[in-house]
Amino acid sequence: MEKRITVVGLGPGDAALLPPMARQALLRAGAIVGYKGYIELVEPELLAGRRVLSTGMTGEVERCDAALDLALSGVETAVVSSGDAGVYAMAGLVLELMEARGLAQELELEVVPGIPALCAAAALLGAPLMHDFAVISLSDLLTPWEVIERRLIAAAAGDFVVVLYNPRSGRRKSQLPRALAALGEYKAGGTPVGLVKRAFRPGQEVVQATLATLDADSVDMQSIVVVGNSATRMACGRMLTPRGYAGKYGLGKAGSTPG
Amino acid sequence: MEKRITVVGLGPGDAALLPPMARQALLRAGAIVGYKGYIELVEPELLAGRRVLSTGMTGEVERCDAALDLALSGVETAVVSSGDAGVYAMAGLVLELMEARGLAQELELEVVPGIPALCAAAALLGAPLMHDFAVISLSDLLTPWEVIERRLIAAAAGDFVVVLYNPRSGRRKSQLPRALAALGEYKAGGTPVGLVKRAFRPGQEVVQATLATLDADSVDMQSIVVVGNSATRMACGRMLTPRGYAGKYGLGKAGSTPG
Repeated sequence: MEKRITVVGLGPGDAALLPPMARQALLRAGAIVGYKGYIELVEPELLAGRRVLSTGMTGEVERCDAALDLALSGVETAVVSSGDAGVYAMAGLVLELMEARGLAQELELEVVPGIPALCAAAALLGAPLMHDFAVISLSDLLTPWEVIERRLIAAAAGDFVVVLYNPRSGRRKSQLPRALAALGEYKAGGTPVGLVKRAFRPGQEVVQATLATLDADSVDMQSIVVVGNSATRMACGRMLTPRGYAGKYGLGKAGSTPG
Repeated sequence: MEKRITVVGLGPGDAALLPPMARQALLRAGAIVGYKGYIELVEPELLAGRRVLSTGMTGEVERCDAALDLALSGVETAVVSSGDAGVYAMAGLVLELMEARGLAQELELEVVPGIPALCAAAALLGAPLMHDFAVISLSDLLTPWEVIERRLIAAAAGDFVVVLYNPRSGRRKSQLPRALAALGEYKAGGTPVGLVKRAFRPGQEVVQATLATLDADSVDMQSIVVVGNSATRMACGRMLTPRGYAGKYGLGKAGSTPG
């Protein structure tokens, strides 16, 4: 089985956050396939001389089918998306289409992981993900709102830090306020909330707010929203979810000197 | 404020998954501080000529305090851990200590994100994280078991895919069976479970099982366990959590040809 399709996570978009394994996967590919907004994240030198197939956001199935056709024709093909290849991204659709088309024996599937948006956002906010967290997409394009709301409430009841993907789009404006209200059934209004837009990309914005003060209208499709757990607080101007060290070790009671 | 401490996520450990930003942060540092098992993941050329401070697993607070002392003395200092810097890692403890010692005005904190273990494991398993997921550490060193169990049950009740960190150690053997039992209150015995040991490191192992068949004794501290949601299934020998495309688009009913 020498024919291969590779799903590559591009990370946040900054070339400095693209690991060598992803770069190599693009360099060895004869065709690179992806949503045009993601293709724009790829450095021009990695696209040069390659067949590039890009379409709009809703052409996902056609695009992945075309990528499989290319790979079957013997062209090493890379399917790209931002963030990690496996978090709400293309690895699943490629695998699903391989199954539907019966290609398990004909194509090798490789998934190259990348830095997911949740980690890029967390790094800019401080350290909000030091304890258990739940990741929930607010897009109800493929998921009934009832399922989303049930998960929001379960996550809040379990006192998880909650990371919201796809919090808002031009078309979907009501989900985020409804989600914040659902989280508010178990989380206090003063719970720190971090909003990161375009992490590590031009136009990056980092906003610190609370569950009560977050301006939902300032959130867009290229945003990640992180809502703290009951222990999350601001420290040195950053969002911090402590792991419990202070209780266990009594931080700040004694200094130490490097040996 | 020219003094800086940088927290760097090394990713799974394979140099091919270390992005240039992390490499640069290590190259510009005069001192590199971390648990010895993580320091071993750093290529020797990135350690050469630098002060390296490493201690055992339980010396976390002393190690981070020493890193802050070094940074305060004017030595650019990098604190490293595997995976992402912000997921159960060092960013939180460094921030917590900066707060306890009142260093907000004296030190700049930078966090360089990395590929977290959850994404490395998912890439090797297939595409288990295509839908909402919860990440839970089974370590009860700093968290009461009651809190962990409450989160397991909330995540299972919300039909999240569940990623288990720190599933087992030499000392802690009972947590994983108890966790699987808690998840089993809402998840079927046939739910696919993926076990990944040492992802992208020597000795890598990938095991596909179910909630009923997973051999808890085969899990160790360097393992990540991924438990599916109610839609997760095996496809082409891989673990797949579909996003719902099949229902919406009718996959496999029509092929397409690249244009």
